[in-house]
Amino acid sequence: MKILLASIATRSRNDPWANPLNLYLTRIAPHVTIESRLYPTEATLTLHLESLRARTSPALILLDSRGKLLTSEDFATFLAHERNAGRQQLVFAIGPPDGWSPEIRNRADLLLSFGRMTLPHSLMRVVLAEQIYRAFTILSGHPYHTGHEG
Amino acid sequence: MKILLASIATRSRNDPWANPLNLYLTRIAPHVTIESRLYPTEATLTLHLESLRARTSPALILLDSRGKLLTSEDFATFLAHERNAGRQQLVFAIGPPDGWSPEIRNRADLLLSFGRMTLPHSLMRVVLAEQIYRAFTILSGHPYHTGHEG
Repeated sequence: MKILLASIATRSRNDPWANPLNLYLTRIAPHVTIESRLYPTEATLTLHLESLRARTSPALILLDSRGKLLTSEDFATFLAHERNAGRQQLVFAIGPPDGWSPEIRNRADLLLSFGRMTLPHSLMRVVLAEQIYRAFTILSGHPYHTGHEG
Repeated sequence: MKILLASIATRSRNDPWANPLNLYLTRIAPHVTIESRLYPTEATLTLHLESLRARTSPALILLDSRGKLLTSEDFATFLAHERNAGRQQLVFAIGPPDGWSPEIRNRADLLLSFGRMTLPHSLMRVVLAEQIYRAFTILSGHPYHTGHEG
């Protein structure tokens, strides 16, 4: 299974989140192949999804503050279910400031909420990477989730 | 009005969040006096709260994943309400990995949730600082909240 973290955003010159993001991507790497990519517009992400669909069967998970609120344990269960079902690719996508279009929302396999608040996409990406790392520690019985920040 | 960000945590040697946290604290400073402090245990925070209560009337807001889910706009309204009511001190507290005791939960003015997921306290602190900064930009009409990450 591969994971793609997709953000509708342009690269910022001084991203204070680059180090924390890389920290989690490095920690996730032993569990799953993961990549973080920026897309300038929703349309460019949609094009990339179409090219992925020609080769594999990706699940599209849109981050959306009005979406489904999962606990970290529920989220780990979701990842395990996708992995056990033989899913080859998961795409987690963080939307533009004005939100997702109805078209992409209709195509999504899951609308996932990390709370009702609005976060900057760069911080949201770190929170998402941390939750993916946490999920794999939950699934592997690593003590990270039970209080050791490591 | 003063804001205290209180975390039940010990200082870690290499905190990858120190820079992002300081970024938001610096941005909040023109709006309100803010300070971030670590407390080794809930009991030490409780002692500090008692000494604050001897001098002022602080509101205690506990971060709790099972608490009230506010949007960023609701959170800004809450801060404005406290400020307009003449509140001198707001204490936002991030709990230990095993959660808050019933005693401190009963004393809290608000149990505030940023989602159902568990985050490391150091990341939670940055998310909280970002939301406080965002709230002040909402209240002052600054364009940050409407899409410019700045």
